[in-house]
Amino acid sequence: MHTPRVLIWNEYRVERAEPEAAAHYPNGMHETIGQYLRGEGFPVKIATFDEPDHGLTEEALAETDVLIWWGNKTHNLVSDEAVERVCRRVLEGMGLIALHSAHHSKVFKRLMGTSGNIKWRIAAEKERLWVVAPGHPITEGLPEYIELPAEEMFGEHFDIPEPDKLVFVSWFQGGEVFRSGCCFERGRGKIFYFRPGHQTYPTFHNPHVLRTIGNAVRWAAPVDGFAIKHQKHEPLEPLGVM
Amino acid sequence: MHTPRVLIWNEYRVERAEPEAAAHYPNGMHETIGQYLRGEGFPVKIATFDEPDHGLTEEALAETDVLIWWGNKTHNLVSDEAVERVCRRVLEGMGLIALHSAHHSKVFKRLMGTSGNIKWRIAAEKERLWVVAPGHPITEGLPEYIELPAEEMFGEHFDIPEPDKLVFVSWFQGGEVFRSGCCFERGRGKIFYFRPGHQTYPTFHNPHVLRTIGNAVRWAAPVDGFAIKHQKHEPLEPLGVM
Amino acid sequence: MHTPRVLIWNEYRVERAEPEAAAHYPNGMHETIGQYLRGEGFPVKIATFDEPDHGLTEEALAETDVLIWWGNKTHNLVSDEAVERVCRRVLEGMGLIALHSAHHSKVFKRLMGTSGNIKWRIAAEKERLWVVAPGHPITEGLPEYIELPAEEMFGEHFDIPEPDKLVFVSWFQGGEVFRSGCCFERGRGKIFYFRPGHQTYPTFHNPHVLRTIGNAVRWAAPVDGFAIKHQKHEPLEPLGVM
Amino acid sequence: MHTPRVLIWNEYRVERAEPEAAAHYPNGMHETIGQYLRGEGFPVKIATFDEPDHGLTEEALAETDVLIWWGNKTHNLVSDEAVERVCRRVLEGMGLIALHSAHHSKVFKRLMGTSGNIKWRIAAEKERLWVVAPGHPITEGLPEYIELPAEEMFGEHFDIPEPDKLVFVSWFQGGEVFRSGCCFERGRGKIFYFRPGHQTYPTFHNPHVLRTIGNAVRWAAPVDGFAIKHQKHEPLEPLGVM
Repeated sequence: MHTPRVLIWNEYRVERAEPEAAAHYPNGMHETIGQYLRGEGFPVKIATFDEPDHGLTEEALAETDVLIWWGNKTHNLVSDEAVERVCRRVLEGMGLIALHSAHHSKVFKRLMGTSGNIKWRIAAEKERLWVVAPGHPITEGLPEYIELPAEEMFGEHFDIPEPDKLVFVSWFQGGEVFRSGCCFERGRGKIFYFRPGHQTYPTFHNPHVLRTIGNAVRWAAPVDGFAIKHQKHEPLEPLGVM
Repeated sequence: MHTPRVLIWNEYRVERAEPEAAAHYPNGMHETIGQYLRGEGFPVKIATFDEPDHGLTEEALAETDVLIWWGNKTHNLVSDEAVERVCRRVLEGMGLIALHSAHHSKVFKRLMGTSGNIKWRIAAEKERLWVVAPGHPITEGLPEYIELPAEEMFGEHFDIPEPDKLVFVSWFQGGEVFRSGCCFERGRGKIFYFRPGHQTYPTFHNPHVLRTIGNAVRWAAPVDGFAIKHQKHEPLEPLGVM
Repeated sequence: MHTPRVLIWNEYRVERAEPEAAAHYPNGMHETIGQYLRGEGFPVKIATFDEPDHGLTEEALAETDVLIWWGNKTHNLVSDEAVERVCRRVLEGMGLIALHSAHHSKVFKRLMGTSGNIKWRIAAEKERLWVVAPGHPITEGLPEYIELPAEEMFGEHFDIPEPDKLVFVSWFQGGEVFRSGCCFERGRGKIFYFRPGHQTYPTFHNPHVLRTIGNAVRWAAPVDGFAIKHQKHEPLEPLGVM
Repeated sequence: MHTPRVLIWNEYRVERAEPEAAAHYPNGMHETIGQYLRGEGFPVKIATFDEPDHGLTEEALAETDVLIWWGNKTHNLVSDEAVERVCRRVLEGMGLIALHSAHHSKVFKRLMGTSGNIKWRIAAEKERLWVVAPGHPITEGLPEYIELPAEEMFGEHFDIPEPDKLVFVSWFQGGEVFRSGCCFERGRGKIFYFRPGHQTYPTFHNPHVLRTIGNAVRWAAPVDGFAIKHQKHEPLEPLGVM
């Protein structure tokens, strides 16, 4: 298997509009994440909302093994055509890492079939992401929990299908829990939802958060195999012999 | 919990157009299934494709606890508004039993997030549906397998998310297998996909098939509980104390 | 299906030895739970550690549809023969509700195949059990979370197989989370692990906790069906025709 | 992560006692599988039933990342101490690939908590193992199904817990199906049950079967991470502040 080629899609508006976000991510969250992934040896490209076709052309997607998605304010402005292209590629095998507010992106909701609804609160409170699946490759090299001193709260009920594998559960200071690391498979594609990453906190500078994203890229990389086709099929032998 | 109120939605075209289908189901498949379910004590209503709004109005759905769906030729003619109403009600708790070709209905594909693609062959061949989850309520009173002397073949790969519970696996004479009884949960709603039921075979007269559908109605009935809301949430105590 | 017959197995030592436990449960936790279940219409019998065969005879188990288990100090003193009888009955279809410290009982560990290890702390701290599966019958009639003002903490990693269905996740004041309501199926039998219930707190007087246990009894009741046999099987037709 | 070190445990009796088995596997099935795995770059060691401690010493297991197990006639003669050592290592992270009759080995039954019972028939019939999880790494490079012209039949109901991931479903000529590729996780360890491999057929010479085993070794390799401990835990902050 070749080294997975990563495309980081970032809305890239909040870092330009909000000084608090810009302070942590002067070149955008995609650059912070991208720099780490390049250091891990992955070829990384960037696409953003304001590019033509949001940078999500057939060509760009055809050269992507794992797509990372961060969006928030523009969910409903992403074109249906781009959403269609991304979802089709996931069913064909492209991995998808949906970060933070991506729970409400068109792409994620469509692949889940649910609303993605949550509870939330922005109060710079403490979060602990506990590993509940310690043998899972996404947890490689992590401690028992990742502690983030200040984050936005996301709380249950999180309206998603039962994850194929639950990897992290978050504890929040204010009294909530959240299934914050969730693996799904759709078609040939693997999807990892990872909760943290509000733009006003330095979460994507946390080495454990970065390591989790890198591990998820390796886990979500496509697996070579037969194409899934919708087709009429011939019997093993002429029927009627029984 | 009250007795679940059933709405059987049938495309109801093939029984009027194809003599082979009419021979088995002179009043439509919905009447064959409906008669059994009424005998089991369930209040049953019928809706069909050619009614205004396909019979899937807000009012009709509001009075439905479990919706049974059989469609085939008209999948893409079902209005998006009706699909939207049905999916919303499922997320709110309405049960859904998707029969046979419903794997390609807009409703099922949208709730799954996948293509629903399969292999198929119409060759009147033998099918055996093996129970793989013998403690599951949908299997109550069934033998080890249901044998159907002649059915359409559906084969893997079936493009669905991993079922929350796999209940039946089918064997086909011509050499294929299929995950033919699959439970899913989406929002508060329970979904059961059940494979058999091609219109040119008397499948819905088989007592084990009928019993399975009746069991599935009981299993898929809504559970009373809190509403799932998307909302800002207050902390347990004023934060900042840690 | 008949009304499930319940057998509550309680170690019944801590209530006689510890004044704090006796204060909450003067006649034993089994009587508090049993009284509620009788009020719900279930036939309830009691068995305790100090009875001959721990009250877990073939006869007693043969008349039990759902077994509730609370143990703590005597886990390793329960006879292997009793454990063998209980586990065999679960595989045959008897439901099992494992409460609190039962995570370390021989019966639970043997049915799970794992150590059942946890983190813990006895500090009378606040616990919130959040419902993460709002359509599940065990949550019928419950609010979004059950709050217990003082409980023992159990924390992850909880060494269990991935639950077939995760129903509750607990938040603890001191910073931990726990998968505190977990459904498993083994053979024909359904198993529900439910975390709360340390003897020095009045947890089993909480109406939501009691309702959860009653719901779990209904969910775990056996389903009639074919016996699971290990056997040589005859082919559909003489082989060699292909 | 280093290249996983493989230990192939083979009962190694049937190849010495049965001419039909010896014809296919003159040096034992372990040598046929081992030769393939060495060619894939894995360091491979061999252990057999008749060695002291069955070759399953603490030292041998400490140097093993993935254990492959083939047994049949001697299941109940394997010492409880060896079983205990193997199961403990699996919970600590060692991968386990259980082949064919290993469904009834002490090790597998203990890790599953169920009987492992099946149906069976030795009639040299055709088997097709259909891939139902095409994105899973164990299926890398495989076709839609693996066809074996002659194998022993294993049929449902297979008494195992619901697999964490179902990868293959077998079709048998005589009318049965079987969940023949099943992933489980127990503690930190990954387990893959793979059905085919009766000694009187050349199954382990099939390139797709060998590729599946090689893929499974890569998938089951341990993931570095924190140790799972049973321990008292300190709160985040002194309690009582709420």
